[in-house]
Amino acid sequence: MDLKQADAIATAISVRSGEISVQAVITAALERITANNEAFNCFTAVTTQTALAQAEKIDRTIAQNNNPGILAGVPFAVKNLYDIADLTTLAGAKINSENPSAKRDATAIARLQQAGAVLVGALNMDEYAYGFVTENYHYGATRNPHDPTRIAGGSSGGSAAAVAAGFVPLTLGTDTNGSIRVPASLCGILGFKPTYGRLSRSGVALFSSSFDHVGPFARSVRDIAATFDILQGADPSDPVCTTRPPELCLPQLNHGIEGLQIAVADGYFAQGAQPEALAAVAQVAQALQVTATVTIPEAHRARAAAYIITASEGANLHFANLRSRPQDFDPATCGRFLAGALIPSHWYVQAQRFRQWYRDCLREIFQHVDIILAPTTPCVAPPLGQEMMLINGEEVPIRAHLGMYTQPLSFIGLPVLSVPMQRPGALPLGVQIIAAPYNEALILRVAAVLEAQGIVSAPVP
Amino acid sequence: MDLKQADAIATAISVRSGEISVQAVITAALERITANNEAFNCFTAVTTQTALAQAEKIDRTIAQNNNPGILAGVPFAVKNLYDIADLTTLAGAKINSENPSAKRDATAIARLQQAGAVLVGALNMDEYAYGFVTENYHYGATRNPHDPTRIAGGSSGGSAAAVAAGFVPLTLGTDTNGSIRVPASLCGILGFKPTYGRLSRSGVALFSSSFDHVGPFARSVRDIAATFDILQGADPSDPVCTTRPPELCLPQLNHGIEGLQIAVADGYFAQGAQPEALAAVAQVAQALQVTATVTIPEAHRARAAAYIITASEGANLHFANLRSRPQDFDPATCGRFLAGALIPSHWYVQAQRFRQWYRDCLREIFQHVDIILAPTTPCVAPPLGQEMMLINGEEVPIRAHLGMYTQPLSFIGLPVLSVPMQRPGALPLGVQIIAAPYNEALILRVAAVLEAQGIVSAPVP
Repeated sequence: MDLKQADAIATAISVRSGEISVQAVITAALERITANNEAFNCFTAVTTQTALAQAEKIDRTIAQNNNPGILAGVPFAVKNLYDIADLTTLAGAKINSENPSAKRDATAIARLQQAGAVLVGALNMDEYAYGFVTENYHYGATRNPHDPTRIAGGSSGGSAAAVAAGFVPLTLGTDTNGSIRVPASLCGILGFKPTYGRLSRSGVALFSSSFDHVGPFARSVRDIAATFDILQGADPSDPVCTTRPPELCLPQLNHGIEGLQIAVADGYFAQGAQPEALAAVAQVAQALQVTATVTIPEAHRARAAAYIITASEGANLHFANLRSRPQDFDPATCGRFLAGALIPSHWYVQAQRFRQWYRDCLREIFQHVDIILAPTTPCVAPPLGQEMMLINGEEVPIRAHLGMYTQPLSFIGLPVLSVPMQRPGALPLGVQIIAAPYNEALILRVAAVLEAQGIVSAPVP
Repeated sequence: MDLKQADAIATAISVRSGEISVQAVITAALERITANNEAFNCFTAVTTQTALAQAEKIDRTIAQNNNPGILAGVPFAVKNLYDIADLTTLAGAKINSENPSAKRDATAIARLQQAGAVLVGALNMDEYAYGFVTENYHYGATRNPHDPTRIAGGSSGGSAAAVAAGFVPLTLGTDTNGSIRVPASLCGILGFKPTYGRLSRSGVALFSSSFDHVGPFARSVRDIAATFDILQGADPSDPVCTTRPPELCLPQLNHGIEGLQIAVADGYFAQGAQPEALAAVAQVAQALQVTATVTIPEAHRARAAAYIITASEGANLHFANLRSRPQDFDPATCGRFLAGALIPSHWYVQAQRFRQWYRDCLREIFQHVDIILAPTTPCVAPPLGQEMMLINGEEVPIRAHLGMYTQPLSFIGLPVLSVPMQRPGALPLGVQIIAAPYNEALILRVAAVLEAQGIVSAPVP
């Protein structure tokens, strides 16, 4: 099998059938990383020794005819804001490199390991997850595997690029305003941000607690579903994590979409994008035979409110360092945090009040619609270092603009999957599949239909 | 019977027994108000016509041998931030006098009326409930019935003084940082602030939503318990109001306090007060044979955080008017709101984060203690117009200082009853009886014991 192109489930099937050993899978992944990471700058740490030890252990389990787990032998990696035992959690910051190493793995890592997956390293990101580009001042820019002169998106840029480049079939990222979905779109893979509070964030460095989500990147819908299923479940060490029982999605993937009310978001979500981003949504709609549209009101305000709350909470979190050593921040991050520290509380309170109104609005909309479609990013991956771009003849700042379609959704914690469009010869672009809170299964069913039709696909370039 | 001294339950008993008609009770109350309101400036509106019509109706109910309710014929009045149908809700503000009249009564009013009580008017307060003095720039100062040269306290000053003066046995107020407990202490009556979210606030003008509570003033523990019982229960029109089933307290008043762990708050709550305020707590402790003490940590920070959140949320609520017509505010209120509008969001976020920590702290303390005792105010009622006072040789601003012992408790929504000490010949002083959330019944049992011992009493002067 082609381990570089295989998805996680296929890899695990080969492993469990004895077709290939875990040590061979992991060694191959480590070799790909060693050979090519420099080209894309995805990894900030590679956990070679523990990965090989873990691989050996799983091979023994298999030799003893014990169940090695649904992700047996699957190499995976995580954004470097996840705690990895005995490694310092960077969260993209130079300041954090002075911290002691983490005592234990984040809950999400532990759960994937329990399912047989093997952690091979930590991945680059925007400092403190505050950005959409992963052009990290301290640790360098991550490059887009589809065109290394372009950005991978961010803030989970390393996580997206590591899957897109074929280093590993599975990674974890975090999404506050779009940090999973934006790089998934620009790198041409799937990126999933489940409902706020659905997955444990224990052991993950937070940015803006009321917005932060963890979630997976992968190249197939079944990998996303399997990972989501594994990560579900209450966690006493995360007070925000729901205690509602897990709802397994993998067994539901072939349930189809008959009877589902699907609509394309119009208004805000149909404006301000390059034509190909809107064409991608139209292509998905056509494949699903969707003609209905739905208006999410005041989405521009939701974006503004998300900015205000994020900047305020981020500034609060890093305030001591902003005062004492601003020069040690990434200049791009520092400026935004300092601006956040100057926001009047009146704005913050207003943003939170608006949030409640907006949540009620969406709840009402989801009385009549099951799934909403929208672009993930307004454009394909821009060149590295570029600051401005033209959209509809208007020059706009790239960094802020990349999240314009993702921010108004994470703002109220909706589950969203960004799926990569099959666009031969063109740079990747994603489409967001959005549902009401806790309706992840519906999203994944829609994605499975699109994948089966070949509309959605994520080959390694 | 002496209607001026009778408590609500006694009045209702006389009414139901036929000893006196509701019309006689209400006419007498209206006459007391007409004759003496000018001396204390409690009422900003008297609802003579509707009160008399209501009285006649209840008399008919009684004549027909139908149940007129547990508070049959009891005259009551409400702080003028409660909606009263066909009256403009002032909330102490000149600006609000331009508003149309309210369409319906606040839920709390409707529930008391359903129990047979008769609304006779609306009561003076600090503008927008932002103050501890009820020296209202637009509607005048409310005077203390125990000494009309002194303040009644605030912001529910009219509500406290109307009971203390014997106009009515029962009023409603609101408490954000101490606005029920402070005037209850200074006016020598009981003032009850139940658990945050326990009573519906529908139809009540808010000040700082995450702090605002409604609650009753009365002269007896049974009146407080009966009113609390009536006001309990879910209300679809108030999303903050709990849906947990009501727990009736009136039947529990004689359960005594055997087995209850009671402690006096030391540290912050035993400092910065005039000796007589601490002596009042000691007197209660002695009566209850309590020697244990308990330390509520970081109470000074809780107070600071309460200030920050209140000022921020209040400024947000009134921002449009602060920008367009600051001259129409009470100067004292306007300055504080404007200061609130300038608070950085970082402070607000930090205050909310501290709040969570502090709530966890108190939860831990209440694992070992059932009831905590603390002073309500650091001093007796200061003279009207006085701005500074001496406490322990230090000159402190009165307005801010009056709430120093109440703010750290409402900050996390704890239920608190302020009980008036029996202090012959001295000005009134209250003591706070504090419990864990939803433990109102324990508080009222303790108060009933103190009342039975004569330690606590609230005679009309």
